[in-house]
Amino acid sequence: MQGTAGSGTESTTPPAAYAPSDRTVPTRSADRASYDRELVHSILDEGYVCHLGFVRDGAPVVLPTLYGRVGERLYVHGSTGSRPLRMTGQADPGLPVCLTVTHVDGLVLARSAFHHSINYRSVVVHGIAHDVTDPEEKRVALDALVDHVVPGRAADARPANRKELAATAVIRLDLDEVSAKLRTGGVNEEPEDYALPHWAGVLPLRKGYDTPVPDEALAPGTDVPGYLTAL
Amino acid sequence: MQGTAGSGTESTTPPAAYAPSDRTVPTRSADRASYDRELVHSILDEGYVCHLGFVRDGAPVVLPTLYGRVGERLYVHGSTGSRPLRMTGQADPGLPVCLTVTHVDGLVLARSAFHHSINYRSVVVHGIAHDVTDPEEKRVALDALVDHVVPGRAADARPANRKELAATAVIRLDLDEVSAKLRTGGVNEEPEDYALPHWAGVLPLRKGYDTPVPDEALAPGTDVPGYLTAL
Repeated sequence: MQGTAGSGTESTTPPAAYAPSDRTVPTRSADRASYDRELVHSILDEGYVCHLGFVRDGAPVVLPTLYGRVGERLYVHGSTGSRPLRMTGQADPGLPVCLTVTHVDGLVLARSAFHHSINYRSVVVHGIAHDVTDPEEKRVALDALVDHVVPGRAADARPANRKELAATAVIRLDLDEVSAKLRTGGVNEEPEDYALPHWAGVLPLRKGYDTPVPDEALAPGTDVPGYLTAL
Repeated sequence: MQGTAGSGTESTTPPAAYAPSDRTVPTRSADRASYDRELVHSILDEGYVCHLGFVRDGAPVVLPTLYGRVGERLYVHGSTGSRPLRMTGQADPGLPVCLTVTHVDGLVLARSAFHHSINYRSVVVHGIAHDVTDPEEKRVALDALVDHVVPGRAADARPANRKELAATAVIRLDLDEVSAKLRTGGVNEEPEDYALPHWAGVLPLRKGYDTPVPDEALAPGTDVPGYLTAL
């Protein structure tokens, strides 16, 4: 029933969760799976690199690459000569891909080797990647790719010129067949293992930034922009 | 000619570099590719999670998972019910996979949107995953998986018992068709862009650990082990 009433906004409200499919229901640890749209978006938006999987000559290939999100669409870009982008442009109706983003949040040390684990959050997207040919969609996607690395940066850089646009391919993957999976919290143990003398607990990973290193040719007095210090 | 002379050591010395193959020579940025064995090992050993790609019903699947390295062999483990592990056990001679590990080291902000990039180090391994059935190899692999998360931990945890071993599948992927790819250093610019007023440089990412969070049921006085404080 969502999105059917005229709300005066320009787009309809998507459902709060993605519909599970055969490919997005895990065979194991189903309690760790989530289809919550906001959670999926937050995990995607926090990552820098996705791992893009495709099939070449019958065998899997997994490559790390930058990505950006615009609403319910993910974008990946690269040289027009790069393999998955070239394959997408040549495939009809597109290239079957799997795009995965993972954050490692902590190391979980149990008293038993068996219950060692990590705390993590991941998103897996299945679908067909399509070549982006519309110039306006391509422009929006490229801005999203830059802003994904540093929010606010796209407005503070020279936009791609005609030659650069021609050298850059962009592919789109819709967020449709999507799931998140996460482990949080402390240690699981077998009841009889609590008496063992081994230290047990979680070692959280910390992520942050070091001091920005300015380009040597930067004009003296060029301040570090606010969107960087805000990180 | 390496590894042919009797050196008195128990194993022969592997070549200093992996041999490139059609799949490990990139179509783009070939100058960023490396086949150096020590570099490959160091990138693999620094990661917590790999992204394992395989083909299911003709479509790619990319899942994050823990891994461990023993010499020139990588190991992945999981429940015997997990899909890629079950598929490996059922496939003859094994399951074609692609295993990728990536570290993001810094955000590269150029004056032009086009030259934005990241500094990264990645390893891509192509090959056939095989089910590990030898009990001794399985034991060594499981220790390597625990020690990969925290070096030294395997000796300070209860080893897997018979029931846990039966519930755990381990697959092996040999380091043979392997490449590293990395970007380091500063900003690339078009000569005419140096006059632009935008800040440019590299924002290094920092990785570290927060204070360990002990399990609530830990016996009072149980010290944080040295292999954790060493991190």
